[in-house]
Amino acid sequence: MRAELSLLFSPRSVALVGVSSRADSLSGRLLANLKRAGYGGKIFPINPKAQEIAGLPCFPSMSALPGVPDVSIIMVPRDAALPAVEESLAKGVKALVLITAGFREGGEEGARLERAIVARVREAGAVMLGPNCMGLVNTDPQVRLDATFSPVPPRSGGVAFASHSGALGVAMFEQALEVGLGISLFVSLGNSAVVTTADALEVFARDPRTRAVMLYLEAIEEPERFLAVARKLSAEKPVLVLKAGRTPAGQKAASSHTGALAAQDRAVDALLKQAGCVRAESLRQLLDWARTCERVPAPRGGRVAVVSNAGGPAIAACDALAARGLELAPLSPGTQEALRGFLPAEAAVGNPVDMLPSARPEDFQKALEVVSADPGVDAVVTITVTPPLAPPLEVARALAQAKAERPFLPVFMTSPEFYARALEVPNLPPVYRFPEEAVEALSAQRRALKAAALASAAPAAPFRPASLPQRSGFLPPHEALTLIAEAGIPVAPWATVRTLQELPETAEKVGFPLVLKAFGQAIVHKTELSAVALNIQNQELLQAEAQRMSQRLAGQGLSPEGFLLQRFLPGGRELILGVSRDPALGPLVLCGLGGIAVEVWQDVALRVAPCSSQDAEAMLEELKGKGLLGSFRGQPPVDRKALVEAIVRLSALASGVPELAECDINPLLAFPGGVVAVDVRVRLEGA
Amino acid sequence: MRAELSLLFSPRSVALVGVSSRADSLSGRLLANLKRAGYGGKIFPINPKAQEIAGLPCFPSMSALPGVPDVSIIMVPRDAALPAVEESLAKGVKALVLITAGFREGGEEGARLERAIVARVREAGAVMLGPNCMGLVNTDPQVRLDATFSPVPPRSGGVAFASHSGALGVAMFEQALEVGLGISLFVSLGNSAVVTTADALEVFARDPRTRAVMLYLEAIEEPERFLAVARKLSAEKPVLVLKAGRTPAGQKAASSHTGALAAQDRAVDALLKQAGCVRAESLRQLLDWARTCERVPAPRGGRVAVVSNAGGPAIAACDALAARGLELAPLSPGTQEALRGFLPAEAAVGNPVDMLPSARPEDFQKALEVVSADPGVDAVVTITVTPPLAPPLEVARALAQAKAERPFLPVFMTSPEFYARALEVPNLPPVYRFPEEAVEALSAQRRALKAAALASAAPAAPFRPASLPQRSGFLPPHEALTLIAEAGIPVAPWATVRTLQELPETAEKVGFPLVLKAFGQAIVHKTELSAVALNIQNQELLQAEAQRMSQRLAGQGLSPEGFLLQRFLPGGRELILGVSRDPALGPLVLCGLGGIAVEVWQDVALRVAPCSSQDAEAMLEELKGKGLLGSFRGQPPVDRKALVEAIVRLSALASGVPELAECDINPLLAFPGGVVAVDVRVRLEGA
Repeated sequence: MRAELSLLFSPRSVALVGVSSRADSLSGRLLANLKRAGYGGKIFPINPKAQEIAGLPCFPSMSALPGVPDVSIIMVPRDAALPAVEESLAKGVKALVLITAGFREGGEEGARLERAIVARVREAGAVMLGPNCMGLVNTDPQVRLDATFSPVPPRSGGVAFASHSGALGVAMFEQALEVGLGISLFVSLGNSAVVTTADALEVFARDPRTRAVMLYLEAIEEPERFLAVARKLSAEKPVLVLKAGRTPAGQKAASSHTGALAAQDRAVDALLKQAGCVRAESLRQLLDWARTCERVPAPRGGRVAVVSNAGGPAIAACDALAARGLELAPLSPGTQEALRGFLPAEAAVGNPVDMLPSARPEDFQKALEVVSADPGVDAVVTITVTPPLAPPLEVARALAQAKAERPFLPVFMTSPEFYARALEVPNLPPVYRFPEEAVEALSAQRRALKAAALASAAPAAPFRPASLPQRSGFLPPHEALTLIAEAGIPVAPWATVRTLQELPETAEKVGFPLVLKAFGQAIVHKTELSAVALNIQNQELLQAEAQRMSQRLAGQGLSPEGFLLQRFLPGGRELILGVSRDPALGPLVLCGLGGIAVEVWQDVALRVAPCSSQDAEAMLEELKGKGLLGSFRGQPPVDRKALVEAIVRLSALASGVPELAECDINPLLAFPGGVVAVDVRVRLEGA
Repeated sequence: MRAELSLLFSPRSVALVGVSSRADSLSGRLLANLKRAGYGGKIFPINPKAQEIAGLPCFPSMSALPGVPDVSIIMVPRDAALPAVEESLAKGVKALVLITAGFREGGEEGARLERAIVARVREAGAVMLGPNCMGLVNTDPQVRLDATFSPVPPRSGGVAFASHSGALGVAMFEQALEVGLGISLFVSLGNSAVVTTADALEVFARDPRTRAVMLYLEAIEEPERFLAVARKLSAEKPVLVLKAGRTPAGQKAASSHTGALAAQDRAVDALLKQAGCVRAESLRQLLDWARTCERVPAPRGGRVAVVSNAGGPAIAACDALAARGLELAPLSPGTQEALRGFLPAEAAVGNPVDMLPSARPEDFQKALEVVSADPGVDAVVTITVTPPLAPPLEVARALAQAKAERPFLPVFMTSPEFYARALEVPNLPPVYRFPEEAVEALSAQRRALKAAALASAAPAAPFRPASLPQRSGFLPPHEALTLIAEAGIPVAPWATVRTLQELPETAEKVGFPLVLKAFGQAIVHKTELSAVALNIQNQELLQAEAQRMSQRLAGQGLSPEGFLLQRFLPGGRELILGVSRDPALGPLVLCGLGGIAVEVWQDVALRVAPCSSQDAEAMLEELKGKGLLGSFRGQPPVDRKALVEAIVRLSALASGVPELAECDINPLLAFPGGVVAVDVRVRLEGA
């Protein structure tokens, strides 16, 4: 990590360039927040029109400052931004925050200005947050930096938060306060012109106070670096992401918001999986999951016990568990007996444990202790509806005091006043309002662990074949097959001939039964042109078929450049493998079930190239029709290892050959004893 | 609706049988709630050990009462329940509430006792709520009945709520208070032994104060009646349902909670669709959607405008809109111009409208008025993050005063204290915390309208064919085909022969090409036994094939009872239609894409039989591979009307023939000019 980034988050002094003397202005509020948070460093207001602002001596310009501030926060109108940046750089400032908006997100003129500023910052070896941002926060008691205009101070805690939208970040502070989520670091990335999400992740990785990371992203800039940094980070700390622009409507809105290039959402999804991140679908999930990861240790398995004083909500929890891939843990006879020991006879002591409305606070505590000591239980969800005979806050206190052997998540469905007071109960984990939300949060923790494990495998090394032709356009089949074979993907035995005379000898080498295909520039849709003949059994039939095919093509004014002979292999299960390029995220590798399945069910999985064997295995698991690859209608399973290998090698090719614009292996036939590529289409661009 | 039900919800007097003199007991709390709510009728505590309870004179027994109470609420221990019920019935009480638990849900002994009680109640022509329930509420100012032990009084309003779980119902009151949902009627159904969900729905349908219905169900008792009553109700008022037991784990928990029979969740889903209900997946959704339906008129279309003072949350709203089947409405040039008239130049006036953080309360009001007057807009979502320059409550007041031409849903992401205060702002619709939740609620309203429209079509009349054999077991193919043909489903031309001698003449009548199938008791898996031959072109080949087939079967010790000849029809798209029975919900009709699709993608849709043409059409729309039925690989679309007709007729057969345990038409071939059943398997049971 660069030292300048460190400086940005832990400055010993900050200059506020263009701060207004009006306390109710945005810049005035930023200054007030710095003071409210108890910032320990020096604050230098810079404003040529004021002597003093908010009790601090004011300087007319950057050059008038007594020393070089660690950070310069620039809040001038847009047209004064470039000179202000230049002045800070000239002074020697190495970390800037450009709050001002109206750059790339506002049109071409703003984009030009942004490029000019970025160039200056880079030349000076400095870093800059923004533009079009709301600043940053570090709640470390040694730093106490709140350089934002948030109306409320963030609660100090263990969640680091980066957001492309400043307003959203600040809105989340308020919701976070209410649900007891604490912030370690916050950064409003704005246009991410210099400091990017990947930079923020590097800072978060190093911060010892950060236990979980929460991201609101409108784009993924520097995707390769993001992937590399996030993979490392997610191995240590859960990374929860809300990526806006999931839909075309959202994408359009996001592009005009921060001027970012839109990526296909499926590719974003793949990239986040490869990075070990967990993707939330709503702001509430993002918050809920982050506060859980902040304060509840991740359970070591997915077997959950539910302990409640009401049947209905417990059933809702059971439904949510099963729907989210968790299990209702069977309780051991000993555990059930121990529960029977203090619960009434009508109570249910299986899982879910229904203690009935008469349950007292001490019953909750004892039940949690007993159930969490069961070796078959990895986590406990407790559910309390207002007990008729005790205040819910006493249940909360009793739970907080329990010697719970496993992580537990308390749900309380009770009166509104309870929730704020529960925040003050020492050692009480985050409280959930509804059983489904506790279960979702638990499931997110499990997914974070699994995602990190998946992302821990190294992706394949990019591969650039020696046989790569140096030109653009579609490759003739023999070149395409050679390329794929060189990449390490088995290809059905084949050879090409230029004339019909060569057929017999070549056919003998390839071996019968055969497929015959004519090829040439104009022969693209082979099936429509009847330029393919399958399952040819012998030389005689081959000669006849080749003659007929030549005549048919000649009848349409086409003369083939040659013929491809390929061994006909019956009985494999059809897949399609492919390569495409995302405008924002780069090369993608795709795998789907072939035949009509790709068309009718769109049953495909993709990853950013290059991918690891684990990624490829996960792709196969994502296919809805994956049953087709297992034992199916009396056939043994296909050779999964060979299939995984083919996906990985294709991904290596995609990342090693930037000019590979398009590649389809359709079909790739999968057999119990291996896979073979049959038809391959390759298009190069900009070679 | 029965008069006794009316009495139950609007009694002029209630007897409390077994009420305790201890105010902190559950029965004491029920009495306290009656008084707290200001119940206007007479209250008769019955307890032989007390002279007076809570200031009311107490009676030693039901027979000692001066008159017959309208409702008798029984809260005695389980073993005293039957005599208490008998005493009330003897007195002439026609509406009972049995709060006591420990009946069907507690095992066989309880179940027997419950059956005895139900028999007495039915004999007496009375109704009874419960057992194992928490009572009921009617907030009508003329009634003011709160006969529950809820710790908080429900807020009075327009949502009627029935719940199988009493504790859950009461827990929801507290959450409802906080989000401003108002209750018209509440009923805790418990074991639904006499008064069922369908009865509750009849009451809700007649109640003029009820504008929306919210159900928490653990079972669907009386499915046919539920369907009939809910179809009528949903045409008038949105019906929102959380059905517990979506998953096997939840189902198991639900069964032990109220002792209900488990239904397959897919069948429940179908039934709810046919009933015009909208299914929620979580308690939060249920509450959120109900409060929306209570207070926001349903938008007449799905075109939504988003007006905000922050970009990020607006993008989240756009994503949610697209994900939930709503549209981001394009704003007219006039609307955009009007917005330009009062918003700063940097504001975005397309949709989403981003007014920037500087937006004032009057900007929100004006923008809402302008945007909602656009004829292309059906609803508006406003999003307010804490404005730096005005309190959010002022924005709320300004929005509430706006002359909005369309329904609008306000989202506020602001400080915790705001939300309770916003409940007091007159004319402000329900406030949402997150943009996604407002959009989900809007989408639920649209779905409720669409569901009601779909449920408005009458299902087919049950059909019982004359050809129905009077025995159990699998039918031979000619009987199965005859049955299906009589039900009105076209069948490929066919005939059977008993001996090989009859083949030539019969084949001539059926027409070539032909399929030949051997049949007989032991010949079940025809393909494995090679007892099927396809695409036979002439008499000679037919003879040869029939000989070979006979020999093959003889070689395995099988002698066919005869042969089925059927016209071979190439080129149709394969579907599967079927009938099965759900243990709780009765006959189901199923439709899926045939071939490997049913196996690999489980791509099937189902409905409770009988269904309507609209239901069948919706089933086809549910198929993920529905593209296969449209124009596909150069073939025109299949005859959708004929396909719909076949589904409807099969559903009519399923409901007209209770002994039809199983029926598979596999394949049903669909052509551009009609459909034909090819292979039919029928099993009768208990005929």
